Amino acid sequence: MDEVKLFGFWASPFSRRVIWALKLKGVEYEYIEEDLPYNKSDLLLQYNPVHKKIPVLVHGGKPIVESLVILEYIDEVWPHNPLLPKDAYERSVARFWAKFIEEKSHLIAKLYRTDGEEQQEAAKEYFEMLEVLEEHALIGGKKFFGGDEINMVDIAFCSVAHWLRVVEVFAGPKIFEPHKFPRLNSWIQNLKSVPVIKDNLPDTDKMLALLKRWREMLLASKSS
Amino acid sequence: MDEVKLFGFWASPFSRRVIWALKLKGVEYEYIEEDLPYNKSDLLLQYNPVHKKIPVLVHGGKPIVESLVILEYIDEVWPHNPLLPKDAYERSVARFWAKFIEEKSHLIAKLYRTDGEEQQEAAKEYFEMLEVLEEHALIGGKKFFGGDEINMVDIAFCSVAHWLRVVEVFAGPKIFEPHKFPRLNSWIQNLKSVPVIKDNLPDTDKMLALLKRWREMLLASKSS
Repeated sequence: MDEVKLFGFWASPFSRRVIWALKLKGVEYEYIEEDLPYNKSDLLLQYNPVHKKIPVLVHGGKPIVESLVILEYIDEVWPHNPLLPKDAYERSVARFWAKFIEEKSHLIAKLYRTDGEEQQEAAKEYFEMLEVLEEHALIGGKKFFGGDEINMVDIAFCSVAHWLRVVEVFAGPKIFEPHKFPRLNSWIQNLKSVPVIKDNLPDTDKMLALLKRWREMLLASKSS
Repeated sequence: MDEVKLFGFWASPFSRRVIWALKLKGVEYEYIEEDLPYNKSDLLLQYNPVHKKIPVLVHGGKPIVESLVILEYIDEVWPHNPLLPKDAYERSVARFWAKFIEEKSHLIAKLYRTDGEEQQEAAKEYFEMLEVLEEHALIGGKKFFGGDEINMVDIAFCSVAHWLRVVEVFAGPKIFEPHKFPRLNSWIQNLKSVPVIKDNLPDTDKMLALLKRWREMLLASKSS
């Protein structure tokens, strides 16, 4: 009964966090792709009755919900290749940044779901967030947020490393200009050169097509 | 250098979480009251440059920021009287609910800062949140969220136990009707009968006066 299952959606950065963590730990799991946004499975609704959202990790029949909570769980159950530092203070710093990005994660959806003034606002807020990361989070010439090895913060920030660049292709204002964010830019290169990450990124063209289609649907439903 | 200091504000539920946790653990600390909202100390801004907010716990000269992150830190550094269960799955359930209430915590501020339709919306959302807690979080006749002892979830929910009732006195719609939320109502009684909690609640009349004054200021600045 120690079976591990993950209910996810291929293009979701929240699912991707869990996939990266499981792969970094070398945990075998069964992946169940949900048909979003309209055909959620009965099992997903049963496992996550409060939010009705992916990702859900099911371990030995018990559901663990919310990607950051799942990362903490994975790190406790499979402690090798740790996602959190050992030191309590360093752990608090990692949790601070994971929470920080979590509270800004609606911005990436706002960027591709809106246009005009509303989108400009989201772009401005996203840019300011990147400035904070550049100035406060990636200091001291570190390869990753935690130092020499990937940790929970790098995983939590996956939408900054990949999703933003896809959304920028079609959604309007250019936010990430590498010369403005040299530390973040190096971090993205470092992250994407890690085999587990590189081999487990969603296909960019497929993601572009999906997000474009969702954006058109959303903008059409707004104007109708 | 193992000195513990807490930068807080007496009426803040976020400060109160940390105070309760420190008192439950029996940790000695120096409390520094911030003069909010306009006269934040230089030390606070230095310790929390990203959010510029209380609470900040300073331990051995190092700042720990964000009340839920502070609770995790306190539980790791002073493991007696645990705030999180031992079992990894139970820990994930506790973290799920702490995150849930965290993401709804803006509602209590919205209730006392708004009126009319905007306030009605906040009230509706708050009511729906209480329904979720009643239905999903407090099941199985438990005394507290985690069982027989107070844990992180009870502490995280402090605004439901106390702040909501104060705001209801003057801010408009009555949200918490005990007969609609029998489990939550028992939980509030149980929580407030724990000596550490009962002896460390902010004064209701003083809080009422402060929140009323803030509300009037905010509504006046909106209409001007």
